[in-house]
Amino acid sequence: MKARVLVVGYGNVGRRAVELISERRNAIERRWGLELQLVGVVRQRPWNEDDQVPVDLRFADAVEAIRRTRPDIVVELIGGIEQAREIILTAFDVGAHVVTANKAVLAVHGPELRAAATENGHLLLAEASVGGAIPVLRTLHTTLAADRIGRVLGVWNGTCNYILTEMEEHGTPFADVLAEAQRLGYAEADPTLDIGGGDTAHKACVLAQLSFGAQPDLDEIRYRGITTLIPEDFTVAEQMGLRPKMIGLLQQQGEGLAFYVGPALLPRSHPVAELEGVRNGIWVAGDAVGGIFLSGPGAGPAPTAVTVLGDIIEAARMSPANEEEDTETPVIERWGTLLDEDAAPALVPHEDLRFACYLRLHVPDRPGVLGRIATALGDHGICIESMLQPWRHPSDAVPIYMTIDEAPIGDLERALSSMRSLDFTVGEPFWMPILEREGR
Amino acid sequence: MKARVLVVGYGNVGRRAVELISERRNAIERRWGLELQLVGVVRQRPWNEDDQVPVDLRFADAVEAIRRTRPDIVVELIGGIEQAREIILTAFDVGAHVVTANKAVLAVHGPELRAAATENGHLLLAEASVGGAIPVLRTLHTTLAADRIGRVLGVWNGTCNYILTEMEEHGTPFADVLAEAQRLGYAEADPTLDIGGGDTAHKACVLAQLSFGAQPDLDEIRYRGITTLIPEDFTVAEQMGLRPKMIGLLQQQGEGLAFYVGPALLPRSHPVAELEGVRNGIWVAGDAVGGIFLSGPGAGPAPTAVTVLGDIIEAARMSPANEEEDTETPVIERWGTLLDEDAAPALVPHEDLRFACYLRLHVPDRPGVLGRIATALGDHGICIESMLQPWRHPSDAVPIYMTIDEAPIGDLERALSSMRSLDFTVGEPFWMPILEREGR
Repeated sequence: MKARVLVVGYGNVGRRAVELISERRNAIERRWGLELQLVGVVRQRPWNEDDQVPVDLRFADAVEAIRRTRPDIVVELIGGIEQAREIILTAFDVGAHVVTANKAVLAVHGPELRAAATENGHLLLAEASVGGAIPVLRTLHTTLAADRIGRVLGVWNGTCNYILTEMEEHGTPFADVLAEAQRLGYAEADPTLDIGGGDTAHKACVLAQLSFGAQPDLDEIRYRGITTLIPEDFTVAEQMGLRPKMIGLLQQQGEGLAFYVGPALLPRSHPVAELEGVRNGIWVAGDAVGGIFLSGPGAGPAPTAVTVLGDIIEAARMSPANEEEDTETPVIERWGTLLDEDAAPALVPHEDLRFACYLRLHVPDRPGVLGRIATALGDHGICIESMLQPWRHPSDAVPIYMTIDEAPIGDLERALSSMRSLDFTVGEPFWMPILEREGR
Repeated sequence: MKARVLVVGYGNVGRRAVELISERRNAIERRWGLELQLVGVVRQRPWNEDDQVPVDLRFADAVEAIRRTRPDIVVELIGGIEQAREIILTAFDVGAHVVTANKAVLAVHGPELRAAATENGHLLLAEASVGGAIPVLRTLHTTLAADRIGRVLGVWNGTCNYILTEMEEHGTPFADVLAEAQRLGYAEADPTLDIGGGDTAHKACVLAQLSFGAQPDLDEIRYRGITTLIPEDFTVAEQMGLRPKMIGLLQQQGEGLAFYVGPALLPRSHPVAELEGVRNGIWVAGDAVGGIFLSGPGAGPAPTAVTVLGDIIEAARMSPANEEEDTETPVIERWGTLLDEDAAPALVPHEDLRFACYLRLHVPDRPGVLGRIATALGDHGICIESMLQPWRHPSDAVPIYMTIDEAPIGDLERALSSMRSLDFTVGEPFWMPILEREGR
């Protein structure tokens, strides 16, 4: 069996993928009886003399390269959204399968790309797009193909997890840890996409599509970042046996799919809570399987590239190179909904999400304040489960930490809004869900 | 697409699999366009009136059922070795794929069954045979299909892990915990296969075959159980930041495959060391991927059955029912060696395994004893890394705990043997490897 491969993109991951195709060629042929042939590499920036790609395989324009080489498999590693979309559609157009690590294009154009793949009988494999080398999409679509999946919960942004790990360990404020992370290369110069939650949201959208058949509209979903966490949140959480993590969460709620991206508290013994530094991990709960946990490096050129190669090999083995156009070889659909409904599930509106929550407020140190806050919560149907106002030196604002029973987030947010109209300043209140706590 | 399925075996897992095929039929058809049709269930013991299997689908003899129903997929859940072998070969003979959760038959007859599958172009899928619902075989053969796998290390016997967790938590001796585990149903009435290491060894053989292409001879491999661990081992290990676990280990050592099944010490922060109770987990280290960790329920009817269904669906989707004998549909080889060598790797002989080790001895409280023990080790090239002889009330035998630098196990065992010929009794010495310690 032989597969002709075109790699589009020659950044860190693309370069490593090209190297691996060469380094591992013999092993792949021995193991799988599959001959991988690199037919081209696309680099938009000028090629360097010492790039390890033969001159006749070098291309500058992706669409032209696809049309000229007519590969069996196009590997899209160029990133971006609109350009990647065009590349993927062009690949399907010439009869190629597509392997991609690009969560952004899937988050925005996933439904269209999926339809194009299915229509033409092509594969769109994207294991590396969520959680790097963690085999989450494949596990959901194979081992758990028959289960009713209730919850996918994970940490899949290494930058956020690194920052939170450092904040907890050293009690350092967010801004200081971020600066250090940037210095060490764990955070980008512009870290917005990571710390603001956008990257986690992209990957959650991919999981929502590829695992639950949902079609979230990236423009309409709400997500939150980790910029408003303070070291005291970790201290208070620790007293409750909990730990803050920047999570993505997809779970069945009634007929719909609950989608939450933001900080949340997990029991410290939960595998997702135990993830440290840049490591990623995903917890999958199903009716029959109970809970499965998968963890690994969420990024990095080598883990991402070897995962991309895994997809290339799977695409080639599942559907051999279609040299004859009239091949009858069936293509195995790899995308599916893991919910039982006929239609794609709707996302539960943000305000209808139901969580038990942690709540932090800063209030003036005056009589009657606590009563009015508790009343504001009660007026909106929010039930206080526990409350802590720690002793501290007199100051203008004292912190109050609470946990509340499960309630619709809309009610909580309305209660918090109503506090703004009280005649004292409470500062910006902060809340996050408490998940997976036993006995809840 | 349609697949006719025969389930052989109606114990806990078989019953749950039959139920799931019925319960999840509609969901599977919606998700994967696959119609699963149950064509028979084999139960060797008499059927009960209230068994949820239609009378015309009930069979008592597996071979007869296979020949009469000529299914697309035979699901072997009957256990045992020789009988299971006959069933699997008969299935291939009538053109069926085989799904099994039976590690024992694979450990003993794996190479023959694999050859029979390949020869006839059939699939032999066995994800549930190692680690229950943990997707380890699939991950090794897909996501990591292109990587050079250096090490597979895991806890895949829930009974052992439950006992060790309890011994550590409560300081209770092995025999007492075992009795309690039997009372609670976490250990069999005859627990030999679990606590003696046989079950872990079976699964290690399956992994060695299916992941490394090795062909270990079950009669020749050596493995150890957990019966000789004592509570003090946990205390001493904790002081070193380590934790005893009953592990299976496969790793490249030179040209061969190191195979170790028995107790070992791991850093307490290692994901495998963090597994508690009956939970299973597997750590896979590869050149490119770094480390991936997978954990989940290692047993139980529902997780095992849903994993079996995952294999059924994969078999059906990868290779549709061969109603026409001359189908050209390629069958995708799912077994491969993940080593780079052409030939199947040989197992490293037990005495050539190289480990840093923990060592426990009981010696008489007399002058000169320690010197002669240290000399016996030194004479065999064993270098002591650390030593602890804790203070205790004078008694006939005092314990000595040591760690030794990496050395061939044969040298260590010869050194320990030589101590038996000293003119004092040292009791039976105990050793276990220390793995994954940083800086080693």
